[in-house]
Amino acid sequence: MDFPGISARTRICAVMGDPVEHSLSPRIHNAAFAAAGLDFAYVAFHVTRGDAARAMAGVRALGIRGLSVTIPHKLDVIPLLDEVDAAARLIGSVNTIVNDAGALTGYSTDGPGALRALAAAGVDPAGKRVLMLGSGGAARAVAFALAALDPRPRLRILGVEAAELARLAADLRARAGADLEAAALAPESVAAGVKDADIILHATPVGMAPKTGASLVPPGLIGPRHTVFDAVYTPRETKLLADAKAAGAKIVPGLGMFVGQAAAQFELWTGRPAPVEVMTRAALSALGGER
Amino acid sequence: MDFPGISARTRICAVMGDPVEHSLSPRIHNAAFAAAGLDFAYVAFHVTRGDAARAMAGVRALGIRGLSVTIPHKLDVIPLLDEVDAAARLIGSVNTIVNDAGALTGYSTDGPGALRALAAAGVDPAGKRVLMLGSGGAARAVAFALAALDPRPRLRILGVEAAELARLAADLRARAGADLEAAALAPESVAAGVKDADIILHATPVGMAPKTGASLVPPGLIGPRHTVFDAVYTPRETKLLADAKAAGAKIVPGLGMFVGQAAAQFELWTGRPAPVEVMTRAALSALGGER
Repeated sequence: MDFPGISARTRICAVMGDPVEHSLSPRIHNAAFAAAGLDFAYVAFHVTRGDAARAMAGVRALGIRGLSVTIPHKLDVIPLLDEVDAAARLIGSVNTIVNDAGALTGYSTDGPGALRALAAAGVDPAGKRVLMLGSGGAARAVAFALAALDPRPRLRILGVEAAELARLAADLRARAGADLEAAALAPESVAAGVKDADIILHATPVGMAPKTGASLVPPGLIGPRHTVFDAVYTPRETKLLADAKAAGAKIVPGLGMFVGQAAAQFELWTGRPAPVEVMTRAALSALGGER
Repeated sequence: MDFPGISARTRICAVMGDPVEHSLSPRIHNAAFAAAGLDFAYVAFHVTRGDAARAMAGVRALGIRGLSVTIPHKLDVIPLLDEVDAAARLIGSVNTIVNDAGALTGYSTDGPGALRALAAAGVDPAGKRVLMLGSGGAARAVAFALAALDPRPRLRILGVEAAELARLAADLRARAGADLEAAALAPESVAAGVKDADIILHATPVGMAPKTGASLVPPGLIGPRHTVFDAVYTPRETKLLADAKAAGAKIVPGLGMFVGQAAAQFELWTGRPAPVEVMTRAALSALGGER
C-alpha cells in the first residue's frame, strides 16, 4: 500500500471500539486517503465501555477529525455528542462522528452503505418488494434507509427477537407509514416471504465465520428473479450467496455494504468523493491477509 | 520512507502542542518505528492551553501509548499525571509521557538528549568545566543532567533573566551542592567564562532562524581546546558553530540533542534501543524539506 509519511499537519481519524484489534477500517481508510492524495491518517483506539465520555473529551481536545464507532459504543456515545443526524436519531445508533472544531455530530452510515452496495450491483430497491431477515442493528439501519426511498419499498421483516422486531416495526410505521409487515422468523414465514420478494436482504449473523455452513433460506426457494443481499462479509461468499448464485439470482455480497458505509464516512470526514474501488481492494486484501 | 501500513493493532504515540504543525517529531519517530520493525505510528495533536486536562483524559481512554509534550503544556501537564520521574520533577517540566494501562508517567528527555549528543561526539562532560549560556527550559534540563554526573562538571551559568537564573542556581545548589557559579550574561562574563571553559553549552534562542547571523560568543575567544555545543538546530550550523569550527573547536550541533531527546522517548515508549542514525537522517530530511 502506498501510504505517505505522517507529518505534524496530518489530520487524524480513528475507529474506537472494544474489541477493535480485528477492524479492517485502518487498512481501508488509509488506502482511501492515500489514493485521494489527502494528508489524513486513520488509526484504531481500544476504548472500553466505561470510557466513552473520556474518549469524547479526548477527541475534542486532541482535534481528531472523525471517528468510526463500533461495539460497545454505538448507542452510548449519543448523549455525548453535540448533534445527531436525523437518520441516526431514528435508528438510535451512531457509527460515525464528525468533529468540526470541537462540535461532534453523529451519523449512521450503515443504511447508506447498503444502498450504495445495491446501487453498485445495479439494483434499485425503490418500490420493490423487500424481505428482510433480522431485526438487529444492521437490519434497523437498512430498514430506515429503505423506508426513506421514493417510491418506498414494500418491506416484510422476519425476526427472532420478538421485542426487538416489534420495536423496529413500530418505529418504522411511525416514521414511514404503511407497506410494512413484521412476523416471526420461521420456515413458513421465510418460504412465504421469499416467494413474494424481489430482494432478499439477510441481516442476521447466520452464516458468519466460523459457522459458515448455515443459511436461513432453503436453496430451492431462490430463483433468477431474486436479488439476494447478505450483510455478512466473513466469509465473502456465504452459503446464502453461494445458493443464490447457483439458483441464478443476482447477488450483493456484504463486503459492498461494509465498503459502502466506510465510503460514506470518508465523504463525511473529507468532503471528497470516496475512492470506492481502492477501498474495496484494500478490504479484500486485508480480509485475505487475516486468513 | 518505508512506512508500513497502519492496522487496528498499531500502537499510537503523538506530540501534543500549540503550535504543533511544524513539529519534526512525526517524521523522526515514524522512521524509527519502521526501522525497528515496530507496529507503532506517531501523529500530531494540536492541543490548546486550556485543553490539557481533556487531552490527558483522552490519552487514557484512547490508549495512546506515549506523548511528546511541547509548548504550552510542559509545565501544565504535571499535575495531570499519575507519576513524574525524579529528574523531571527537579526540572519542573515534562516533555515525555508514558501511558502504562492508563497510568501516566512524565519524563524530561532534554537533558539525557544533550548527554547523548555529547557522547555521540566523543565528549565526556564528567568533571569538565562547562560554561552554560542561558537559564531557560533547555538550559535547566541540561544543567540538571550535568549535575547528576560523576564526577560532577564545574558549571558556570550565564543568564539574562535574573529571577530565572537565580531560581535555577538555587535549585541546582539544593540538588547538587557546590561547583556552580551563576552570573548575568554580559560581554565580560562571557569572555571570562569562555576562557575558563572546556565545554561551551549555548542554550538561548540567539542565532536561531530567522535571525541566524547572531552569536553570544565572540569568535576570537574560541580555540581548539573547546567543545562548543549549540542547542539551536535551525539552522543546522549556527553562527556560533561556524565560528567554533573555524577556530578548530570540536562542535556538537543542536540536532544531536534534538534527536537524542527523541531517542530517549522512543526507548521509554517501546523498551527497545532507538535507531539513532535513522532518526538523524529523518530529521535532516525533514529539515531539508521544510526549506
